[in-house]
Amino acid sequence: MQFYEDLVVGDSERFGAYPVTREEVIAFAARYDPQPFHLDDEAAAQTHFGRLSASGWHTCAMTMALLVERHQRVGHQGLGSPGVDDLRWLRPVYPGDTLSVEIEVLSKRRSQTKPDRGLFQTATRVYNQDNVLVLTMTSHAMVRTRDPGGKD
Amino acid sequence: MQFYEDLVVGDSERFGAYPVTREEVIAFAARYDPQPFHLDDEAAAQTHFGRLSASGWHTCAMTMALLVERHQRVGHQGLGSPGVDDLRWLRPVYPGDTLSVEIEVLSKRRSQTKPDRGLFQTATRVYNQDNVLVLTMTSHAMVRTRDPGGKD
Repeated sequence: MQFYEDLVVGDSERFGAYPVTREEVIAFAARYDPQPFHLDDEAAAQTHFGRLSASGWHTCAMTMALLVERHQRVGHQGLGSPGVDDLRWLRPVYPGDTLSVEIEVLSKRRSQTKPDRGLFQTATRVYNQDNVLVLTMTSHAMVRTRDPGGKD
Repeated sequence: MQFYEDLVVGDSERFGAYPVTREEVIAFAARYDPQPFHLDDEAAAQTHFGRLSASGWHTCAMTMALLVERHQRVGHQGLGSPGVDDLRWLRPVYPGDTLSVEIEVLSKRRSQTKPDRGLFQTATRVYNQDNVLVLTMTSHAMVRTRDPGGKD
């Protein structure tokens, strides 16, 4: 189980392998982001994307899938997130890519009003199979404390 | 058609009505964010969410659906987005909610290297049917210029 007390500022970890499929890229885009370059090969070829690419929000969703998979593996006691800063879609994500995630703990503090939880920030970096950085963001998250009376 | 030249800093606009369904909340969470409070009524009741709520990334995706619907209605000549800042999930989004979006143009400038496009920033605010703000973010986006030689 991973509680607030177990998070170490400066620690980083890389994990996951999410295969991006053409079917899923088109299905997500059709429902949530039906811009031509996320749906159609010919339309995409006429843009700076070059070919069919995933919606940026789909990349966020796939990233979340890898994060939750990791959190469940380590028993992370997460309580949700108030938000993210500086979300950047740096490179297109294409069908055939495989995504992995790196997280680095940037800071942590106990909640001043709710002793059952702490807040922490992570740098989140998403790479494709060629180790090219495709997405970065700074995530804020809440996590249960093991000892609500602790001082660290 | 809405080009770079047609964007007016300070203009705002509210639109859209996205009905959030239980089936879609669970389907999205099962695939991309399978934390118990997005999947299961009883688990959600034991958290600060109170009841089953949508993944924050699902709220982003539904917001994008409303934005693209609007952009296609006005013929917005969008070229994608490098990212967003200060994304905040302010309140839970529940099945049964209906989401609408407000966008306000904060700033705009022509690309210095690519005269076929400009960049602009918008404040994006998402409300539920009770006019409660559930999500805010600052979006960066690219848009085609009508006149690549223009100076405005």
